[in-house]
Amino acid sequence: MKYKFLNDYSEGCHPAILEKLTQTNYAQQSGYGNDEYSESAVEKIRLACRNEALDVHFVSGGTQANLLVMAAFLKPYESVIAAESGHINTHEAGAIEATGHKIEYSPAPDGKLTPELMAKHLLKFPKYHTVKPRLVYISNSTEYGTLYTRRELEALYTFCRENELLLFIDGARLAMALTAGENDLTLEDLSRLCDAFYIGGTKCGALFGEAIVISNPALQTDFRYHVKQRGAMLAKGRSLGIQFDVLFTDHLIFDLAARANRLGAKLAEAFRQLGLAFLTPPQTNQVFPVLPDTVIQKLAEQYEFFEWQVIDENSKALRLVVSWATPEEAVDRFIQDLKACYPL
Amino acid sequence: MKYKFLNDYSEGCHPAILEKLTQTNYAQQSGYGNDEYSESAVEKIRLACRNEALDVHFVSGGTQANLLVMAAFLKPYESVIAAESGHINTHEAGAIEATGHKIEYSPAPDGKLTPELMAKHLLKFPKYHTVKPRLVYISNSTEYGTLYTRRELEALYTFCRENELLLFIDGARLAMALTAGENDLTLEDLSRLCDAFYIGGTKCGALFGEAIVISNPALQTDFRYHVKQRGAMLAKGRSLGIQFDVLFTDHLIFDLAARANRLGAKLAEAFRQLGLAFLTPPQTNQVFPVLPDTVIQKLAEQYEFFEWQVIDENSKALRLVVSWATPEEAVDRFIQDLKACYPL
Amino acid sequence: MKYKFLNDYSEGCHPAILEKLTQTNYAQQSGYGNDEYSESAVEKIRLACRNEALDVHFVSGGTQANLLVMAAFLKPYESVIAAESGHINTHEAGAIEATGHKIEYSPAPDGKLTPELMAKHLLKFPKYHTVKPRLVYISNSTEYGTLYTRRELEALYTFCRENELLLFIDGARLAMALTAGENDLTLEDLSRLCDAFYIGGTKCGALFGEAIVISNPALQTDFRYHVKQRGAMLAKGRSLGIQFDVLFTDHLIFDLAARANRLGAKLAEAFRQLGLAFLTPPQTNQVFPVLPDTVIQKLAEQYEFFEWQVIDENSKALRLVVSWATPEEAVDRFIQDLKACYPL
Amino acid sequence: MKYKFLNDYSEGCHPAILEKLTQTNYAQQSGYGNDEYSESAVEKIRLACRNEALDVHFVSGGTQANLLVMAAFLKPYESVIAAESGHINTHEAGAIEATGHKIEYSPAPDGKLTPELMAKHLLKFPKYHTVKPRLVYISNSTEYGTLYTRRELEALYTFCRENELLLFIDGARLAMALTAGENDLTLEDLSRLCDAFYIGGTKCGALFGEAIVISNPALQTDFRYHVKQRGAMLAKGRSLGIQFDVLFTDHLIFDLAARANRLGAKLAEAFRQLGLAFLTPPQTNQVFPVLPDTVIQKLAEQYEFFEWQVIDENSKALRLVVSWATPEEAVDRFIQDLKACYPL
Repeated sequence: MKYKFLNDYSEGCHPAILEKLTQTNYAQQSGYGNDEYSESAVEKIRLACRNEALDVHFVSGGTQANLLVMAAFLKPYESVIAAESGHINTHEAGAIEATGHKIEYSPAPDGKLTPELMAKHLLKFPKYHTVKPRLVYISNSTEYGTLYTRRELEALYTFCRENELLLFIDGARLAMALTAGENDLTLEDLSRLCDAFYIGGTKCGALFGEAIVISNPALQTDFRYHVKQRGAMLAKGRSLGIQFDVLFTDHLIFDLAARANRLGAKLAEAFRQLGLAFLTPPQTNQVFPVLPDTVIQKLAEQYEFFEWQVIDENSKALRLVVSWATPEEAVDRFIQDLKACYPL
Repeated sequence: MKYKFLNDYSEGCHPAILEKLTQTNYAQQSGYGNDEYSESAVEKIRLACRNEALDVHFVSGGTQANLLVMAAFLKPYESVIAAESGHINTHEAGAIEATGHKIEYSPAPDGKLTPELMAKHLLKFPKYHTVKPRLVYISNSTEYGTLYTRRELEALYTFCRENELLLFIDGARLAMALTAGENDLTLEDLSRLCDAFYIGGTKCGALFGEAIVISNPALQTDFRYHVKQRGAMLAKGRSLGIQFDVLFTDHLIFDLAARANRLGAKLAEAFRQLGLAFLTPPQTNQVFPVLPDTVIQKLAEQYEFFEWQVIDENSKALRLVVSWATPEEAVDRFIQDLKACYPL
Repeated sequence: MKYKFLNDYSEGCHPAILEKLTQTNYAQQSGYGNDEYSESAVEKIRLACRNEALDVHFVSGGTQANLLVMAAFLKPYESVIAAESGHINTHEAGAIEATGHKIEYSPAPDGKLTPELMAKHLLKFPKYHTVKPRLVYISNSTEYGTLYTRRELEALYTFCRENELLLFIDGARLAMALTAGENDLTLEDLSRLCDAFYIGGTKCGALFGEAIVISNPALQTDFRYHVKQRGAMLAKGRSLGIQFDVLFTDHLIFDLAARANRLGAKLAEAFRQLGLAFLTPPQTNQVFPVLPDTVIQKLAEQYEFFEWQVIDENSKALRLVVSWATPEEAVDRFIQDLKACYPL
Repeated sequence: MKYKFLNDYSEGCHPAILEKLTQTNYAQQSGYGNDEYSESAVEKIRLACRNEALDVHFVSGGTQANLLVMAAFLKPYESVIAAESGHINTHEAGAIEATGHKIEYSPAPDGKLTPELMAKHLLKFPKYHTVKPRLVYISNSTEYGTLYTRRELEALYTFCRENELLLFIDGARLAMALTAGENDLTLEDLSRLCDAFYIGGTKCGALFGEAIVISNPALQTDFRYHVKQRGAMLAKGRSLGIQFDVLFTDHLIFDLAARANRLGAKLAEAFRQLGLAFLTPPQTNQVFPVLPDTVIQKLAEQYEFFEWQVIDENSKALRLVVSWATPEEAVDRFIQDLKACYPL
């Protein structure tokens, strides 16, 4: 069996979650998220953000979180601005458009939007004949494993407020972003520097589940109607509440993310030592090294990973992902096998 | 703490599921339902239906299953025929209409559609100005706890095929239907007598999850695109596969349902012995007795249940639901407390 | 050739419209409704409503007007309350549901909603699981040719404001309503007693065209984006502006409607004199007499009309419609032919 | 009053249309396109395409035609491939996305798609996570006034059929395309080289109206339901039928287009003689010359036109459009005024 560095959702969940599910199994609870575990989890997230006024909703997956937010926040003629590589633009099977909204995108080699990239979408004419940009979608960390700095996020949010745009952060890997070595944002900062975001559980130790956090009060009204209407409200909402309650106990989610980042850095360092380049600067648990096809072929005998992009006729950029559950030995073994390919 | 007869999703899941989740937790698996547990579960469902050609998809909840099916099977101008009490018509927050389709409904006091009720929706004129009925939605067991007999289902499906209508069965409580005392349908029968159906897990021992089963080959194409687009494809599809794999091992799901039905019958018998009437004939794990308000008030001190419908100024129909996890002692205690209210 | 009493859109348009189209044909104008004729027509409508703050938009047809209003005014989970016979519920091919919204309807034999009928739609539970009623749709005159009195409309609008509901009036035949003998509403009254309405041109002398009038300022924002997005913004908006400019010059639209009502009353009187009953009280240009099948058969040799509803095995209710263009002789001839059938 | 070269919809319609509207005004006709004029117009279009099996539907505008076709032809997860400059991608206020479909676009400086540009949209992965391209949208003539040759169109359609893609042609200015000097396509060719197209009336002498022509039989079923549902079915369909009946009598539509092209060529020749460049090669009635800002400023005192694109700090590309109704004197005067600006 080859070891998979394919993604951060190849394993189950942190054992503490299974324990808590077992321990609470027979307690009768109200349905649809009105259980005591969900209430506790909401409180813990508010506390972590130091903001009691946050609206928190647990849903099953990232595409679901994204489509819910867009469907709820936008009027029919309003559009979303995103990086070309934004998950909603590439790998959600048209989920956003299926709710009726255009995504307007800009090429962004490192997966990050800037005020300049956003500005060009505001210059359309004539009025009423084009869509009206209303929500800016960014991912942190991005689909390329990169990070927004505090300064960058502040600049984006300032631009948004100056232009009546909402800022939404896809946090499928938010825990990785906030525990990365180069990160200078806290969860509290982040929750103040956007109108809404979600905290990914699926890729950070949960079996499934994302926590949508809405800070802009105008966007909080009746959000649960949307959750129900889009089929995202679990009867046994406890199964989501329990997971986030565990993940937000004693910083578990951040510890798991920090560990994945550390192993990602270990992988990156190995590539670096061999003088290899990266498609994008490695900052989190996703690493995109550029390797010769001969090396890729060799490694593929023992490991699974995505061949992300053809660089030239002899090399490709790979995507290697470390998860919360990746054993350090697997990383070490990979590095050893990599080094064994050199000198070519 | 009052004991809840509110619904069949107040508890967690059957412990065998938690065991299997724990046991498989660290095995690396492919994402999005391509894991070995999901594949095994699909095979077990096909085997239980004695039909290898069935298309099976696991999703998180009933509203999600319903909206996916309607969005996938219908053209924009096609409508759904349902009983007025159909879950899609009452308690899914307009999920079907949100995918663009009208629900055309008929009052049906026992929650069951008939060819006669369906026929009147086919008489509209003029062509092109009305919607075009295309899919018939029924629930088995129904929202009122009642059952379709084999003869009734055959009549419905014959009518459907004669009128170019698709038949879809909402099986949120299908296991209860198929194990009810008065039932004469097998899973195999049922899977032949409709175009698609879903097998509910959430209300029959799973933490969450429903299995959509598509028998009509013309409807199978590209269904996974819909699943992804509507945010219903879990990255860790294993969490659904494992649950159905366990539920379809040694008839577990049907054993759990049979037990719930048996306790439902025990409750019903107690009401009957006191000479009380029912809103609808008790056939499964949902019982709708008509009680004097004074008795209701007394019982409400110890138990939670829905006051379903006002019957007259002195009495109401309640909904009492037994779940897979309801202890028999809770039922016995309730019966004792009920009897203690009589003679009034 | 049989004479048609089928509807009020069997002929072209009032000749004054063709004259104005001809006379202005070569004048270069801005597109998309920014032409001087549209601007003049908007002013005339505001003047007729004695309200300079009204937002007015010209579109091509009634279904278009209705779907635009619902798509623009409602959030995804909000529903529309209507009479069962409401045009949006029966003869718009699911146009409202195609914009994502459920229509909740009540049977109303005379086609008119009441606060009581509306109230029952507000009692649903539990919250978040049902749709949330938000807009009340009525037609004046109704699909059955009946009228709302000022008192009735006031009661509806009071109920709406007390319950955070919007009131929208489908005015496909508004000119007929406001010029009916039993009417006690002015256009000014009506425009104050709802949040939005449309004034039908198609059925009152225009070639096509309806004027959507939005009085609630909160609903006016960006409406033109919706018009464009739904394909309802004509490049040569002048063709709509010119028609409404002519129709609102010297009360033309109301004169045409009054004439149609007068001929409708003449028809109704003839039925009444023969002792015939009506499906609904004849108040405008639509008359629904109940006739024996033998008489219907005889009349059908010379005239076209809809057989609206089977009353019993020997009789049916017809729908007879008089248009702005129906010659009085056609009505007189029909009455003569009708009387010739009696005594049977 | 400045003369407008802004677009081809600044005037009314060809006088023969007004005459026919007047002449037929009082004839009673069936509604919704079942009138004799619409039937005659359909026959004339079939004859012009030499194909009796074509399905023809008249609607009011181009955005309406486009959104109808996409909504009718596509399943929810299927996308549209277009040039970045495609009208649906830029100037339809998100109408296509509002029907639920993603537009995938490629930059194309001359507004024309090629098999190469289309091919890159077919390479996405993984399956089910991306949208599935299904319909290719092109405009002829394009938004940049350019043309597809027969060879180019054949290559596109061959590519489409090889890849299970549908080809749809936006013919807002189809008459101009087919009468351009460099055109080598007949209407018959074109109708064979795609699955559906529309023939624009609004920009070629009609007051409003486009004729959707569906050649692929599999796409013809029930199209009228879509027309009704999207609010595009006029009660007085005669007003569309009469216009197309007139436009397709004695080649009127093509004569009008040829004349507009001839005046466009006259304009282009004047720019060429002054040594001016063009944004795209002038081939039809839209001309995009690059002019110094000083000249633009001078011309803007007498004429209206769009400043289409900034070329450098001293010059811009204009869009000048000649309509069927532009007097030759207006063109001559413009050329004279242009020449008077030189030498600078």
